[in-house]
Amino acid sequence: MKIQIVRDVLEANDQLADSIRGEAKKLGFTLINIMSSPGSGKTSLLESVIPELKKKGIRLAVIEGDITTTADAERIAILDIPVAQINTEPFGGDCHLGAEVIIPALQKFDLANLDLVFIENVGNLVCPAEFDTGADYNFVVISTTEGEDKPLKYPLMFRVCDTAIINKIDLLPYLDIDINKLKKNISQINPKINLMSCSAKTGENIPGIAQFIFNLVK
Amino acid sequence: MKIQIVRDVLEANDQLADSIRGEAKKLGFTLINIMSSPGSGKTSLLESVIPELKKKGIRLAVIEGDITTTADAERIAILDIPVAQINTEPFGGDCHLGAEVIIPALQKFDLANLDLVFIENVGNLVCPAEFDTGADYNFVVISTTEGEDKPLKYPLMFRVCDTAIINKIDLLPYLDIDINKLKKNISQINPKINLMSCSAKTGENIPGIAQFIFNLVK
Repeated sequence: MKIQIVRDVLEANDQLADSIRGEAKKLGFTLINIMSSPGSGKTSLLESVIPELKKKGIRLAVIEGDITTTADAERIAILDIPVAQINTEPFGGDCHLGAEVIIPALQKFDLANLDLVFIENVGNLVCPAEFDTGADYNFVVISTTEGEDKPLKYPLMFRVCDTAIINKIDLLPYLDIDINKLKKNISQINPKINLMSCSAKTGENIPGIAQFIFNLVK
Repeated sequence: MKIQIVRDVLEANDQLADSIRGEAKKLGFTLINIMSSPGSGKTSLLESVIPELKKKGIRLAVIEGDITTTADAERIAILDIPVAQINTEPFGGDCHLGAEVIIPALQKFDLANLDLVFIENVGNLVCPAEFDTGADYNFVVISTTEGEDKPLKYPLMFRVCDTAIINKIDLLPYLDIDINKLKKNISQINPKINLMSCSAKTGENIPGIAQFIFNLVK
């Protein structure tokens, strides 16, 4: 009985997610869902990559997902782009964003005049991987401070993502982590994943990531 | 209907958790549940604090919770103490440990001859806070690399914990984080929380944390 209900929830979510992708195709915008542990640097990555994308003429918006607070949305709004904040606290402090909360967030934007919408998911390396948001592409950000073993311990996240971005490479001199082992572990879980590294803080490799995202835009 | 089922699950979990606390009281051991984001350093903290506790004559064991892999259990077993690994993957890759999986893990130990059992929960700053494991004390570990804002964004975790340990203070010179702001944010969410900081890597403040834990043992 319980399993049946869970399956219904996931099936309903998948249908909504497909309808989002259909709408994005029709209106001509690309939807990218960014996931990570808390503090891996999703917001910092957006702060560094969005100005580059704006320079390239991309018209974009961001959906910010948090259990509570509007801190990240405020950081993004400074970049002078439309931001919609989803707080999951009224829905029981949900640990992920489902397609059902993405739809009303998208409706806050002038979608016909957008090329790209980022979703910054709730900081959680487990649950968001289980729920299709309707995005065209799923990105996972992992920080060098989290250790080499995380792809092996949280494999679903790395399986559902097209792209993995290793952030905080500026800290490598002060950490014991072997970044090649981290890369090997990511590729072991998902051999087809696009693998990049950067420092959102220093800007290292940010132009390359902006170009990669630019090439994904419809 | 769905809400009813969720409430039943939580109520059943709470009853099991209370039975664990009753058993711990009867047998005379203390149960401490350690939670954090992935990569905050729960295992490293255990690796540094367990030898100190052993020196003080504490007989202890560890329950390792992971979705998959036995990597952390292997790291702890080197310390020559009993370890029970819970992998939640067969239960659908559960994002937390419920009391129902703690009971069979505890049964693997000679509980009458133990003073202290640590639970290392699944790396997740959201869901584990919602499920009582039956522990006497809940600890949250937060790394300096995660930013000052996390207590505000993940408040339930900091509300349910008795103790917060800020780890990786050795990295402070290389980060923009204001540790006093992080401490202030933790205290704002939970004014009664015990607040400590350390570096599991360099050993800074580890003897103090070991003494604090020693004082909690029944």
